Amino acid sequence: MRIALGLEYDGSAFCGWQTQPTGCGVQDHLGKALEQFLQQKVETVAAGRTDAGVHASAQVVHLDTDIQREAYSWVRGTNTTLHPGARVVWATTVPDDFHARYSARARTYRYLLMNAPVAPAILKGKAGWHHRPLEIERMQMAAQTLVGEHDFSAFRDAECQAKSPIRNLTRATVERRGEMIVFTLVANAFLHHMVRNIVGSLVYVGDGRQPPEWIAGLMRQRDRREAAPTFMPDGLYLAGIEYDRAFTLPAFPSHPLVDTP
Amino acid sequence: MRIALGLEYDGSAFCGWQTQPTGCGVQDHLGKALEQFLQQKVETVAAGRTDAGVHASAQVVHLDTDIQREAYSWVRGTNTTLHPGARVVWATTVPDDFHARYSARARTYRYLLMNAPVAPAILKGKAGWHHRPLEIERMQMAAQTLVGEHDFSAFRDAECQAKSPIRNLTRATVERRGEMIVFTLVANAFLHHMVRNIVGSLVYVGDGRQPPEWIAGLMRQRDRREAAPTFMPDGLYLAGIEYDRAFTLPAFPSHPLVDTP
Repeated sequence: MRIALGLEYDGSAFCGWQTQPTGCGVQDHLGKALEQFLQQKVETVAAGRTDAGVHASAQVVHLDTDIQREAYSWVRGTNTTLHPGARVVWATTVPDDFHARYSARARTYRYLLMNAPVAPAILKGKAGWHHRPLEIERMQMAAQTLVGEHDFSAFRDAECQAKSPIRNLTRATVERRGEMIVFTLVANAFLHHMVRNIVGSLVYVGDGRQPPEWIAGLMRQRDRREAAPTFMPDGLYLAGIEYDRAFTLPAFPSHPLVDTP
Repeated sequence: MRIALGLEYDGSAFCGWQTQPTGCGVQDHLGKALEQFLQQKVETVAAGRTDAGVHASAQVVHLDTDIQREAYSWVRGTNTTLHPGARVVWATTVPDDFHARYSARARTYRYLLMNAPVAPAILKGKAGWHHRPLEIERMQMAAQTLVGEHDFSAFRDAECQAKSPIRNLTRATVERRGEMIVFTLVANAFLHHMVRNIVGSLVYVGDGRQPPEWIAGLMRQRDRREAAPTFMPDGLYLAGIEYDRAFTLPAFPSHPLVDTP
């Protein structure tokens, strides 16, 4: 029997999603909590492997087991011993052909960036920070040139293990909520560090270091060294995974910090 | 010369505002950073003495010194060595008759409460949590009976050192933003634990354990033991201090988490 879990976590409490020899990955902590609940070891597969410091308001995970439990029991039972920086939000039985990673048709990432002279204290680790004033319109214009099916080599980390640098970006928006700037990127899949590399380069456009056309130029050149450095992980959230409706997965509630009203 | 500073801090990084022998108070950390900046010891006085775990998006502090610095220099110079859980947001020279605590005419406290079956992970420590469904209208009705000049003994901690239990509450509102419930209380001043005690009792009304009229009854009885237990500090924010406009203090920018849009 295959079970899907909806997961929220604070990336600053872990060293990324993936299991590590030191046991500091979200996957390690979730695995331990599941083992305590089920009295059985299980393997988990996540929709998106987030890096250290990167958060998830809507991660989806699947696992296989022959143990039967009610949905609320999966949630409560796992949360009982799970590290409080991560919470199982929902659980449901899924068909055997559901795969958290391979069945995902689209991923949404959000980046929250505080644009203020002084760094955030209350939201430290939960938002990026840039002290120079950013012009939203310039960033919006530049972001639009990213939309579509393109070779994203310019924003691909050297250690990226994807076979192809081609991704289909269906949304790239930049909005202002007071001192907070919200970047939303939706694609079929993302390359390693792609969102943080795009945000870093859009910030170069926003503060005037580069013209909006620079982004289209980077895309044509396909050279990572020409783009801006990888932006800090603090403000990055895996904020949504889209599957075929036939799987009827529960929806995540709108997140008070991450989701725009 | 008297200087006023605007301060934001994450209460979970400190043991409250007030100085402690172990040096874990916000006041201790601010004092150390100011001493490094000025090469001189200074005493600080805050508008509101927040408890351990309680945050401030808009704390005001004053200090006396004969050292002259530009406003931006006070901000940057202090932040350079200040604990990153606290940030000086603005600085300004004030007349000698300005007193951060005694000149304050009103204080605004906000309480952010996640009302969801599962505890918050990303906002752990930054919002309170109640898993049973809360009815906003019941809490709004009850909150209205608190407005005005009253004896707030029912919501006063046994260790409160205030001379009088009489306070003038000018606003008590309860709003819903998705799964987040926002309580806003404005008064000339607050008794010790008053906001957390009021929130705790309003939650008893919201989840049906008590009728809305219960709050007015508690106010008449003036007996702390009749009210609900003190609610957790996690969701409490000192969110505004009002002074006479003649002091022309800089405004705090709207906070992306604490201030309603």
